[in-house]
Amino acid sequence: MSTKPPSARENPIGIFDSGVGGLTVVRAVRAALPAENIVYLGDTARLPYGTKSAETVTRYSIACMRFLLRHEVKLILVACNTATAFALPELRSMLTVPVIGAVEPGAKAALSATKSGHLGVIGTLGTIRSGAYETTLRSLDPGTRVSGQACPLFVPLAEEGWTDDDIALLTARRYLHELAARAPVIDTLVLGCTHYPLLAAVIAHAAALEFAHPVRTVDSATAMAVAAREVLDRRGERRESTTPGDFRCYVTDANRLAELAPRFLGEPLSSFEVVDL
Amino acid sequence: MSTKPPSARENPIGIFDSGVGGLTVVRAVRAALPAENIVYLGDTARLPYGTKSAETVTRYSIACMRFLLRHEVKLILVACNTATAFALPELRSMLTVPVIGAVEPGAKAALSATKSGHLGVIGTLGTIRSGAYETTLRSLDPGTRVSGQACPLFVPLAEEGWTDDDIALLTARRYLHELAARAPVIDTLVLGCTHYPLLAAVIAHAAALEFAHPVRTVDSATAMAVAAREVLDRRGERRESTTPGDFRCYVTDANRLAELAPRFLGEPLSSFEVVDL
Repeated sequence: MSTKPPSARENPIGIFDSGVGGLTVVRAVRAALPAENIVYLGDTARLPYGTKSAETVTRYSIACMRFLLRHEVKLILVACNTATAFALPELRSMLTVPVIGAVEPGAKAALSATKSGHLGVIGTLGTIRSGAYETTLRSLDPGTRVSGQACPLFVPLAEEGWTDDDIALLTARRYLHELAARAPVIDTLVLGCTHYPLLAAVIAHAAALEFAHPVRTVDSATAMAVAAREVLDRRGERRESTTPGDFRCYVTDANRLAELAPRFLGEPLSSFEVVDL
Repeated sequence: MSTKPPSARENPIGIFDSGVGGLTVVRAVRAALPAENIVYLGDTARLPYGTKSAETVTRYSIACMRFLLRHEVKLILVACNTATAFALPELRSMLTVPVIGAVEPGAKAALSATKSGHLGVIGTLGTIRSGAYETTLRSLDPGTRVSGQACPLFVPLAEEGWTDDDIALLTARRYLHELAARAPVIDTLVLGCTHYPLLAAVIAHAAALEFAHPVRTVDSATAMAVAAREVLDRRGERRESTTPGDFRCYVTDANRLAELAPRFLGEPLSSFEVVDL
């Protein structure tokens, strides 16, 4: 017998990231689940997580999780690749609410899409070096071949808003040229960073130019939103309403937020609150 | 009466930065003062400093200073703009050895070079937002006009080694186009970041294209080396030898060091040691 209160469906989905990049996950969740209430936490005061130790990232991730739990979230999405790689098992062991990481949904979507069985993953230096996607993809299908390409220019390009111009295309072509030279049979490319949905069009354009065959791109943010819908449906916790859900945004530092947030969210950020964890 | 031991001239110059960018300062000091022994510390485990609070940056800077003092340095160069902005007065108050910051030498060189009295400063978002150059330039000459331009793509371009190609030139042109539109009479441009000497040629090329008149570029790293020579000469502590000085490199994390260090140092890094502060 469930002990869930009748109001469980009204409880928000909690999403956290080390910065504002996770707002692309908010955007995807709002598109897939418009009735859901959402609480977002960007730990902008302590970013980046990618350069920190596993212990520090785990400690910070637990603090983010505790903040979201105070908002009685029914589901947590870890939008940060580093937090997923280092802290996901520990977060899951501490919680009764389900937790969706940043890696597995995109990995599964890529495995469904590939015909050649050879996947490409693009991400930050930290994500590619961690091998998180490779480990997850191999655990899901040991026969999969995975080639990674770090794209360090993509995050600053997305943050500058230079997402659809000559510099963005030349940069994407140079990275994908390197990847195609190493792994020409890739037919599916995972955008393994929350910033990359902003560059999705230029990445797809560059892939079409650099590979001699069609390449599908898989957006991790959209894959996480699909996974969230599946989890809520399975648990009978999807909010049913014709009124759009509420969205609350918290950050630990408001620096550049007004400039950056709308690019990732796809709409103006109506309000936010700065919190100390 | 001086209490300096006779060996004071043999003592090394200490240089620290939050990362490997300060190796451009090492390179400039070795060019200006080839006989000097140098100890470098890159606090790579805790970079970037630019996103951290004044208290944290000061604490880290003091730890870097203490490490250098254990090597009996006769002079300290703070190659990090953020550490200079937040911690320089405190470091100076704690020390009897002289300390040269990252901002003032470049600012003085720019004031000597300008005829229009209107200077441009390019740097990271943190440096430009801090107004450190503006404050220093105004304190040196209250009549100076200063216009800043943040160039967030330059650090990843330098780290990728994409310093002399179409992407670098288009990026530099876009930033300097914005600066020239706001401040067309700028005749001197300060490269206010330790990474930027790697892009000096492409920045000069872009400036020539975007301004309708000649623009001189002032490299902070070279200006710091000139200031170091002046301080040592004034104190009678310059090492006189025909044999090149010794160079020791310490970092708090060796990640990417082998790839990055030679770009900044201008030669292979023969050895280094990882230390815990």
